[in-house]
Amino acid sequence: MKPEVHLLNSIAASRTEMTQLVMPTHTNGPKGAMFGGVIMQWVDICGGIAAMKHAGGDCVTASIDRMDFIEPIRVGDIVVLRAQVNATFHTSMEVGCRVEAYNRHTRRTRYTTKAYLTFVAMDEEGQPRSVQPLIVQSPEDEEHLAAAVRRRQERLKLAGRS
Amino acid sequence: MKPEVHLLNSIAASRTEMTQLVMPTHTNGPKGAMFGGVIMQWVDICGGIAAMKHAGGDCVTASIDRMDFIEPIRVGDIVVLRAQVNATFHTSMEVGCRVEAYNRHTRRTRYTTKAYLTFVAMDEEGQPRSVQPLIVQSPEDEEHLAAAVRRRQERLKLAGRS
Amino acid sequence: MKPEVHLLNSIAASRTEMTQLVMPTHTNGPKGAMFGGVIMQWVDICGGIAAMKHAGGDCVTASIDRMDFIEPIRVGDIVVLRAQVNATFHTSMEVGCRVEAYNRHTRRTRYTTKAYLTFVAMDEEGQPRSVQPLIVQSPEDEEHLAAAVRRRQERLKLAGRS
Amino acid sequence: MKPEVHLLNSIAASRTEMTQLVMPTHTNGPKGAMFGGVIMQWVDICGGIAAMKHAGGDCVTASIDRMDFIEPIRVGDIVVLRAQVNATFHTSMEVGCRVEAYNRHTRRTRYTTKAYLTFVAMDEEGQPRSVQPLIVQSPEDEEHLAAAVRRRQERLKLAGRS
Amino acid sequence: MKPEVHLLNSIAASRTEMTQLVMPTHTNGPKGAMFGGVIMQWVDICGGIAAMKHAGGDCVTASIDRMDFIEPIRVGDIVVLRAQVNATFHTSMEVGCRVEAYNRHTRRTRYTTKAYLTFVAMDEEGQPRSVQPLIVQSPEDEEHLAAAVRRRQERLKLAGRS
Amino acid sequence: MKPEVHLLNSIAASRTEMTQLVMPTHTNGPKGAMFGGVIMQWVDICGGIAAMKHAGGDCVTASIDRMDFIEPIRVGDIVVLRAQVNATFHTSMEVGCRVEAYNRHTRRTRYTTKAYLTFVAMDEEGQPRSVQPLIVQSPEDEEHLAAAVRRRQERLKLAGRS
Repeated sequence: MKPEVHLLNSIAASRTEMTQLVMPTHTNGPKGAMFGGVIMQWVDICGGIAAMKHAGGDCVTASIDRMDFIEPIRVGDIVVLRAQVNATFHTSMEVGCRVEAYNRHTRRTRYTTKAYLTFVAMDEEGQPRSVQPLIVQSPEDEEHLAAAVRRRQERLKLAGRS
Repeated sequence: MKPEVHLLNSIAASRTEMTQLVMPTHTNGPKGAMFGGVIMQWVDICGGIAAMKHAGGDCVTASIDRMDFIEPIRVGDIVVLRAQVNATFHTSMEVGCRVEAYNRHTRRTRYTTKAYLTFVAMDEEGQPRSVQPLIVQSPEDEEHLAAAVRRRQERLKLAGRS
Repeated sequence: MKPEVHLLNSIAASRTEMTQLVMPTHTNGPKGAMFGGVIMQWVDICGGIAAMKHAGGDCVTASIDRMDFIEPIRVGDIVVLRAQVNATFHTSMEVGCRVEAYNRHTRRTRYTTKAYLTFVAMDEEGQPRSVQPLIVQSPEDEEHLAAAVRRRQERLKLAGRS
Repeated sequence: MKPEVHLLNSIAASRTEMTQLVMPTHTNGPKGAMFGGVIMQWVDICGGIAAMKHAGGDCVTASIDRMDFIEPIRVGDIVVLRAQVNATFHTSMEVGCRVEAYNRHTRRTRYTTKAYLTFVAMDEEGQPRSVQPLIVQSPEDEEHLAAAVRRRQERLKLAGRS
Repeated sequence: MKPEVHLLNSIAASRTEMTQLVMPTHTNGPKGAMFGGVIMQWVDICGGIAAMKHAGGDCVTASIDRMDFIEPIRVGDIVVLRAQVNATFHTSMEVGCRVEAYNRHTRRTRYTTKAYLTFVAMDEEGQPRSVQPLIVQSPEDEEHLAAAVRRRQERLKLAGRS
Repeated sequence: MKPEVHLLNSIAASRTEMTQLVMPTHTNGPKGAMFGGVIMQWVDICGGIAAMKHAGGDCVTASIDRMDFIEPIRVGDIVVLRAQVNATFHTSMEVGCRVEAYNRHTRRTRYTTKAYLTFVAMDEEGQPRSVQPLIVQSPEDEEHLAAAVRRRQERLKLAGRS
C-alpha cells in the first residue's frame, strides 16, 4: 500500500486520486441519478489538491474552463476522480480531471465526466504568487502540456473578441 | 411579497433568485474564504431550476461551458445568485448565472462569479426531449439570445477542431 | 437579471428571496416528504438575511413566534421562500416568511409554510443595538406593520399572564 | 446503561433525550455562535421522536407554536435536548422541548432554548389518524397537560380573531 | 423533564444519551440500510461527550478498540446511543457505547451496535493531562471497571507481541 | 492518468485510494483539529469500496476490529486513505486502511491513522454470500494475509473467553 515517489514539480507528482461511493445523499431526485453539483464539488477538491501539491501552498479556483457530463452516475456507483496539473503559467495552473464510474455488480467502468479548471497559487497575504515550471518527463506529458497551452490561447482569443 | 407573473416560455419566466448566507461550513480553510465547490453546487441548483421552469419537467446538467471566479467570497457575506435561460436549442438550453456578494456591514455589493451552463430536458424514461422555443420580449432578451448562440457556435467550432 | 433598487430602510429593501430544489437529502423518510427541520433552517436563513439587510449588521434569532406547515412539500418540488421585515421595535424586528412549493411537471404552486420570527440586531461586542425605524411606503406596508404590532401586543399580554 | 421502562401512553414513555456537541459546522459566523437553524432542526427531530413514540407510527410537524432563544450557544458546548408529549388532542399532540447547554470547562449548565410544537399522527395513506389519550400519572403531569390545553385555547382564540 | 443529579466522577455522572431518527441522508444505498460511517460518527460524538463530562475539558479519540455491527439499522428507525466511562487510566478513559434501534410501528427494540473506545484528556496546550479516578458506586459499576481493565491488559499483551 | 490493471481477485485489484482536503466543516472545535468521527466515516467508505471491488457486489461493515489515531490531523491537511483486502474468510473479508496527512506548506507527510475492519459480502436478498479466495502474488501479500489470519484467531480466542 505504499505510494510511489515522483520527481518534484513533475506532472506525476501532482497526480491525485479520489474514490467515492455514491449514496442517496448525493442524488437529486427519487430516481437515483447523481446530483451534478456534488460531482462539481468533488472535482474542485480533487483538482485543487493536485494544484496545491504542485504549488506547495494555498491555491484558489480561478475558473472552470469546461466540464462535460458525458454519462449519468447512479446511486451505488463507485466513482474515481483523477486530477493532474497539465501546464503552469506564471501564477496559474491548468488542472485536468477525469471521472470514471464503476458498477460493482457488472464490474464495468464508464467514463462519465471530464473537466479543465484553472487554479492560482496564493501567498500568505492572499496575493497571487509564481509557481515552479512543470517538469515534462515523457511524450504523454508533452501532449498534455501542448493541449493545455492550446486551450489557453483559444480562451484568450475568445476573451479578447468579446 | 407577491411574485410577478410572466409570459410562459419568456426569458423572464425562467428567472430564478437564490439568496444564501455564507457560514463556516461553506469555507475551505481557517481564513474564512468560501470554498469554490459550494459556489459551483449553488450555481448548479439555481441554474437547473431556471432550466426546469422553462422545460416544465426534469433537466440534467450537460456541461459547464465556463465559470469565472472574479472575486473571493467570505464568511458572513450574503450571496445572491440569479439565473435565467438565455437560449434554447431543440433539447438543450443555455443558462446564465450571475453571483453577487453583499457585505452587510459596508452595504457594498461585489460581482463575484459568472457562469454559463448547458442543461438538457429529459422525459419520463430519461431520454432527451424537445423544449418550447424561448419567447424574446425585449432588445435585452435579444442580446442574451444572440450571445448564447455565438458561444455555442464557438464551442462547436472548437470541438470540431480537437 | 438586474436587481431592483429600493429606498434604504423601506420594507422593500429588506425583501429576500431564496429558491431551493428539494432533494432526497432533505427528506425524512422513504416516502419523499420533506423534513420539517430543513424548512425551519431555510426559513431562519432567509428571514435572518432580511433582518441583516435592514439592520446593516449582525442579527440573532430571538424567537419563532409561529410557524405553520400548511401543506407537505415533496422531493422534486421547487421551493421559493420570501421574507421581509414587517416591523421594527427599538433593537428587534418582526420578520415574516412565506414559503411556496412549485411542481415543475404540473406547473402548479402551493402555499406551504408561513412563519413569523423575531430577530435582534447586535453590535460588535455581541450586545443588542437599536435599528433604524422602518419606512412605510404603501397601504400594504401599513397593513404589514399594523398586523406585526398587534401580534407583538398579544405576545406580551400572553407572556404577562403566564 | 439500561433504559427505564415506562407505562405505555404515559408522558414519561414519550420522553426523548438528545445530546449533541456543537462543532464549527453548526455555527453561523466566525465568532463561534451556534446557528439558530441547526437548533430548530435538532428540536424538530427530538420533538418528532417524542410524538412518534406516543403515536406508535409516523408524525408530521404541523406548527411551531413558539420557540424562544433565551441564551446563545457556542462552539464546544454540550447541548442536551429533552422533549415530551404534554397533551393529546384527537389526531394532534403538543410537544414541549427544553434545551440546555453545558460548558465542559466550567461545568456550568445554561437553559438556552424552549419550544412548543404541534405534531399530527399519520396513517399509512398519509391521512391524520387518532392517537391514544395521554395517561397522566402525577401532579407535575397534570400541570403539563393543563398548560398545554390553555396554550391551545389561546391559539384558537387568536386564530378566530384574525 | 429534569435531569437526574449524579455524584461527581461517578460512572453515572458520565452517562450520555443521544436519540436520532434515521433519514434517507443516513443511508448508503437505495435499499434504506443505514450507512456504517454515520453510526461510527454518532458513537464518536456520544462517547466523546461521556469522556468530556468525566474529564471536565477537551478529549481526543485515541482508538476504537472494537465496534460490532450486530444488526442492520434501517431508514425510519429511532436510534438510541448510550455511552459511559467504564474505567480511567491516568490520562486515558475507556468508554463503552451501546446502540439500540426502535421500530416505531412494531414498538420493538433491537440491540444493534456495541463499541469500546479510548479517549485521552487534553490540556489547553493540547498535551495529555491526568483525569480524576472514577468513583465506583455499585457491583454493576465494579463489573464495568473490571471488564475494561481486562480488555486493556489484553490489548497491551497483543501490542507487545506484534 | 490511466489506472493500472490488476489480476482479478488479487490484493492489488482491491486497492482503493481516497484523497481529501480537511476543511472547517470536518473539525470538532475552534482549534482546527479534525473530528475523529469524520475520519471514521472516510475509513468506512474507503475500506468498504475495497471490499466491494473484491466481492463484486454489496458489502456491509461487520466490525471495526481496531482503529488507532496516531497523530492529529488539522484543517488544511491533505489526507490520503489507502485500503486493501488483506484476507478472505468464506463470506467475510479483513480490510486494512492506512491514513496519511500531508502538509502542503512543509511538504511533510505524517502517518496518522491505522484501521482494520471486517466486511461481509451480501447477496440480492441481503443474506451473506461467499467471496472468491484472495490470490496472493508476492511475499508482501503473504505477510498481509498471515497477519490478518493471526488477528482473526486472536479475536476468536478473546471472544470465546468472554
